[in-house]
Amino acid sequence: MTFAAATAIGPAGDGVWTGGIAPGWDIMGNANGGYLMAIAARAAAAATGRPDPVSVTAHFLAPGRPGPVMAQASVVKEGRRFSTATAGIEAQGRTLLSMLGTFAEATTDSTVERVDAAPPDLPPPEDCPLLVATETFPPPFVDRVEVRLHPAVGAPGVGSGGPKVEGWFRFRDGEPVDTLGLLVAVDAFPPTVFFADLPIGWVPTIEMTTHVRARPVEGWLACRFTTRFITGGFFEEDGEVWDATGRMVAQSRQLALLTR
Amino acid sequence: MTFAAATAIGPAGDGVWTGGIAPGWDIMGNANGGYLMAIAARAAAAATGRPDPVSVTAHFLAPGRPGPVMAQASVVKEGRRFSTATAGIEAQGRTLLSMLGTFAEATTDSTVERVDAAPPDLPPPEDCPLLVATETFPPPFVDRVEVRLHPAVGAPGVGSGGPKVEGWFRFRDGEPVDTLGLLVAVDAFPPTVFFADLPIGWVPTIEMTTHVRARPVEGWLACRFTTRFITGGFFEEDGEVWDATGRMVAQSRQLALLTR
Repeated sequence: MTFAAATAIGPAGDGVWTGGIAPGWDIMGNANGGYLMAIAARAAAAATGRPDPVSVTAHFLAPGRPGPVMAQASVVKEGRRFSTATAGIEAQGRTLLSMLGTFAEATTDSTVERVDAAPPDLPPPEDCPLLVATETFPPPFVDRVEVRLHPAVGAPGVGSGGPKVEGWFRFRDGEPVDTLGLLVAVDAFPPTVFFADLPIGWVPTIEMTTHVRARPVEGWLACRFTTRFITGGFFEEDGEVWDATGRMVAQSRQLALLTR
Repeated sequence: MTFAAATAIGPAGDGVWTGGIAPGWDIMGNANGGYLMAIAARAAAAATGRPDPVSVTAHFLAPGRPGPVMAQASVVKEGRRFSTATAGIEAQGRTLLSMLGTFAEATTDSTVERVDAAPPDLPPPEDCPLLVATETFPPPFVDRVEVRLHPAVGAPGVGSGGPKVEGWFRFRDGEPVDTLGLLVAVDAFPPTVFFADLPIGWVPTIEMTTHVRARPVEGWLACRFTTRFITGGFFEEDGEVWDATGRMVAQSRQLALLTR
């Protein structure tokens, strides 16, 4: 099932849409967070009439299992260029996530005033190992997305170069990644802290914010994830996604809990 | 008027609180964004019964002028350790900001598992120039907060070391900065892009997210703000706040528009 089909929603009236968590978009039974955000963002985009997220924040309240969901969205403000909406996803009476986001038409303005960064220096995709199941880290919906890690990253769970992950992303079936697909790209890689030489269990995300800076062109996306502060039981994970033209198209940050 | 008094709210029943934008917390008549976030966060904290923001996101919808406001907050989920709420601020029938946040008791867990960063290397506060009015940048509520810039930062509007701002923060009257005060600290400095040698006008914030990582101890806060991507009419500004014990207590990111 394509990403577009797996995040499709149908109007159910009065700011409500029906949809579903498709099988295969989960990690050990729990829907990928970025994928859930894409469903909520689709509802918010429908509510605002503006197709592209500019900045979306989700707080994750309960794990999502494959099956039907209800998305709701409500416009808070409609402006000339931007519209802001709240959105949520519910399943079996439980709220899975709550979202607040601003939407627009993705800018075609590719002016670069100043960039103090460069895309990750990755070997060609064919020379980057495909992320597959290991004993310590099952594949994040590997039949849906193709994540190829920089060879220097090593295997998840095997501490190596510190909490930094770089690699390529695309959908498995070659479907182009649109601005909603970027919400998945920033949450598709193994957590940085799995490479930090720490005894770590699960890492539930409290909150994730993604800024979409431009509509990506077709092709592989080069991604980088870093963590600088693992303190007090929390860590942040910062992400960047660069498209095939070398533009940074999405920036993300999530706050997650460290469990043993 | 202290920060606590300037952000005080009174219950008006049914998830609604009355408050006000106090004179002096504005920049050229518009309330400081972090200050507005603190009022909304106070309502959300009251609604959840949990005093400290863990992660709060605001989308800024209209400028706030001194005068009465209405804050509303609604709990989305109450968990064992965290509660999530939406909140908003309205004035004269207009929504000024919309917020989504997760609240808790600020952790006393000061475990440092790994930190790949250091506090800014600042001269003592008395050797850092106090931020005061210039022709190009009026003081951000300088009678309320004491912002002292690293001498190398230079004057706002005078491009120098690039889009990076470092300095000290405290409230003018010596009131300790609590976890809500941190929401002001991360938005109290002149925008990084004012130091980027670009022709820039006003820089309206679309969205701001702050993670509170620990309750700060009393004393000066060392702050750092950086921007890496000024593209397509947008830029992000990343902030860090370190307390007097050398702990990173808050991390922020905002997405703002570049206007000429």
